[in-house]
Amino acid sequence: MLLERSLIQSVGFRNVYQDGRVTGFQFRVRMPSYRGMAASLIDGISVSVGNLLTVGPEVPLWGFAGKTFTLEQLWQSEGLRWPLEEAALVTVPLEGGLPAGVHEVSIELRLRMSYVPLMHQPSLFRETRMVTLAPQDGGGQFKYGVSLYSFMGDYGTVMDLETSLAAINDIGATGVEILGEGHIPGYPNPSAAFIDRWFALLERYSLEPTNYGSWIDTRLHPGRGLTEQEGAQALQRDLKLAHQLGFKFVRPKIGVVSDDLVPDPIWQGAVERNLDLAHDLGIIICPEIHSPTPIKHPVVQDYISLIERTGTENFGLLIDTGIFQDRPIPLREGESRETRPAFLDGIGVDPKDFAEIAKYVVFIQAKFHDINTDLEDQQIPWVPVINALENAGYRGYLSSEYEGERTAWRAIEQIRRQHTLLRSIASDSELTTFQKEENHA
Amino acid sequence: MLLERSLIQSVGFRNVYQDGRVTGFQFRVRMPSYRGMAASLIDGISVSVGNLLTVGPEVPLWGFAGKTFTLEQLWQSEGLRWPLEEAALVTVPLEGGLPAGVHEVSIELRLRMSYVPLMHQPSLFRETRMVTLAPQDGGGQFKYGVSLYSFMGDYGTVMDLETSLAAINDIGATGVEILGEGHIPGYPNPSAAFIDRWFALLERYSLEPTNYGSWIDTRLHPGRGLTEQEGAQALQRDLKLAHQLGFKFVRPKIGVVSDDLVPDPIWQGAVERNLDLAHDLGIIICPEIHSPTPIKHPVVQDYISLIERTGTENFGLLIDTGIFQDRPIPLREGESRETRPAFLDGIGVDPKDFAEIAKYVVFIQAKFHDINTDLEDQQIPWVPVINALENAGYRGYLSSEYEGERTAWRAIEQIRRQHTLLRSIASDSELTTFQKEENHA
Repeated sequence: MLLERSLIQSVGFRNVYQDGRVTGFQFRVRMPSYRGMAASLIDGISVSVGNLLTVGPEVPLWGFAGKTFTLEQLWQSEGLRWPLEEAALVTVPLEGGLPAGVHEVSIELRLRMSYVPLMHQPSLFRETRMVTLAPQDGGGQFKYGVSLYSFMGDYGTVMDLETSLAAINDIGATGVEILGEGHIPGYPNPSAAFIDRWFALLERYSLEPTNYGSWIDTRLHPGRGLTEQEGAQALQRDLKLAHQLGFKFVRPKIGVVSDDLVPDPIWQGAVERNLDLAHDLGIIICPEIHSPTPIKHPVVQDYISLIERTGTENFGLLIDTGIFQDRPIPLREGESRETRPAFLDGIGVDPKDFAEIAKYVVFIQAKFHDINTDLEDQQIPWVPVINALENAGYRGYLSSEYEGERTAWRAIEQIRRQHTLLRSIASDSELTTFQKEENHA
Repeated sequence: MLLERSLIQSVGFRNVYQDGRVTGFQFRVRMPSYRGMAASLIDGISVSVGNLLTVGPEVPLWGFAGKTFTLEQLWQSEGLRWPLEEAALVTVPLEGGLPAGVHEVSIELRLRMSYVPLMHQPSLFRETRMVTLAPQDGGGQFKYGVSLYSFMGDYGTVMDLETSLAAINDIGATGVEILGEGHIPGYPNPSAAFIDRWFALLERYSLEPTNYGSWIDTRLHPGRGLTEQEGAQALQRDLKLAHQLGFKFVRPKIGVVSDDLVPDPIWQGAVERNLDLAHDLGIIICPEIHSPTPIKHPVVQDYISLIERTGTENFGLLIDTGIFQDRPIPLREGESRETRPAFLDGIGVDPKDFAEIAKYVVFIQAKFHDINTDLEDQQIPWVPVINALENAGYRGYLSSEYEGERTAWRAIEQIRRQHTLLRSIASDSELTTFQKEENHA
């Protein structure tokens, strides 16, 4: 387990329930010293949340090793410790708790350092950070998950598997999506120890495996494509591995032969040769409809034709919500609008188009790039998107795919914002679509 | 194991020896995609090193799973993979290799992505980074080590124990220093599994335990100090644990009672009560002489008096090279010279003073803050310091304590620079001190 770099951790920020009532909120704080220390050396922590609340250093309660203590109790404790590798759990009493959303949390932590002259004591550690309190419930008819793709760049540098799963569980999500070739050490032949650990972690963090991303690398060798048989073998390899790890969906990312992402024609044979296997394994193969491919496109029709022709229940569509993007992704440093792919400006598919293909859609990757502190997504129009999914009766997963700026630790906070935003739009299912649009206008 | 965030890794940058000859250099590269991939999808990497060398994408050799391949061999390979969690080892042939020091390394990595339109292929990943090639030998009469204190802030967020030990081994250091309360999970009662892993990692990375940092927290409970007996018990706890983990030195950080770091008077009894135990365990207890305490100071005299009076061989002095700092640490944001401790400007102890206490010194923490790309330390005057240590016959450890800016991953590169600098000063032991000063003027 790794901690976020800031003292105030996003993961763990939540309201506290006691006897069915919200009695306060809590968050985790990383030890700012270079060592762990006896908890009796803590001299308190003052906490402010925006303009909502300020409490003095003696007010918050402290959680270590699963138990809760007052500051006075810490002072009297013997052997109780704040380890360097574990965050302290700080609980602030507040009747009714905090509203879900992004909050400006400030702390001033006080620690007694015996080796520092008294004139410089206690040692003070101050930090202010915008952190998101995700709702623990609501969310309407959907299931919520996160793809480890969201942590690209962070995974293996500032997050490991357990850190990632803990972050996903912490926002009340129930599903985890992985990339086979990214997140399975020893792919395609993981050790028994890894498989054991995978299931142990799923249980610990109350998560179910959702979708498994695979590739059919048609350009695997320079100068020639894959044969249909080679493509089928690649897909078979991943179907078996996905099944072994408990996944129900496999998204093969198929090599393309055109600028608008027409897949290599081998896709059809590669898939058809695996439909019986997928059936036996209880897996649905689902290629993704990804920008710049819109919903109304021959590629989508070809996928649907296969379903209609074979009558299979083991092939379906995966929608990447990037197709609904209606505002551009900002240019990166050194990038120009002329040279980068045009679809990064957004292809703005009308969410209402979803109705036409809804019955074939088995999984949704909730692609997004940037959600600000007012919970406004800068690229994806979530109100019409969620309404379209609701009206079409989609009841499956919204699996976060954060694809924005790859600044370390940013994704953790961004997925918290996205889940808060999506649940706030989707939760109030008794309102009509029209009323919801009014509420979120 | 975690990787550095940049694609070009500092750890692993070294010359390559073949049959006793330097035939090139190598460095590790993190996979820039969000997944691992078949090695046959690599389309080469071009490499430049400052003005010294530029090679085209087909030239470097690739190392995966302990074997080396040409680009052509990668293209023909089946089942060979570049996993997301492992860096590729890139070897560039260069007769004589690169000089030790900081180099500007640039790469352009090419990967074939089957799912990207051909007009945007191959996918290019460019990076330029200043990285330090540390010498594998030299270093004169000293032993070289690193304290995990150097990784403060990084440890537990971007580095774990194995990542840290690998980084230390990679610069040819042989010793590792830890902080008991910081780096032993479950302190003071680590699990048997941790102890097994500790020794396994020491063996894997060819490291010996050097110094173990402990604390005598005289302000453990508000309103009262520690008794001598409590202080002795604290030290005893850490002596036993240090011994269990193979350490030879224990530095108790003792609470202070004055602005110039005079230790709490209980120190003497706390130490004396443990001298027999230290003797039995083969450990030398060594309080540190730390800025603002200079060498000529009653505290140092008191420590020496204890040695002289008892005749013990299990008590000695630890010198923190911060006492030689002769230029200020730059003000941090929001910091003013009036309010911060004056010693941060440097107390500038004359390195020649070392001779007076040399026979009592058992360990040196090579404290430093900032070394630039020309290998110039901005605070510590290493030439006179190293010369003073050499002239006084010190043959023990120089154990790096990086204490500069806590930007993630900065310490890894800074300790590489420090070891390169220290070895370059210390290596040429046949020169006179005067000649060395000339060489480094």
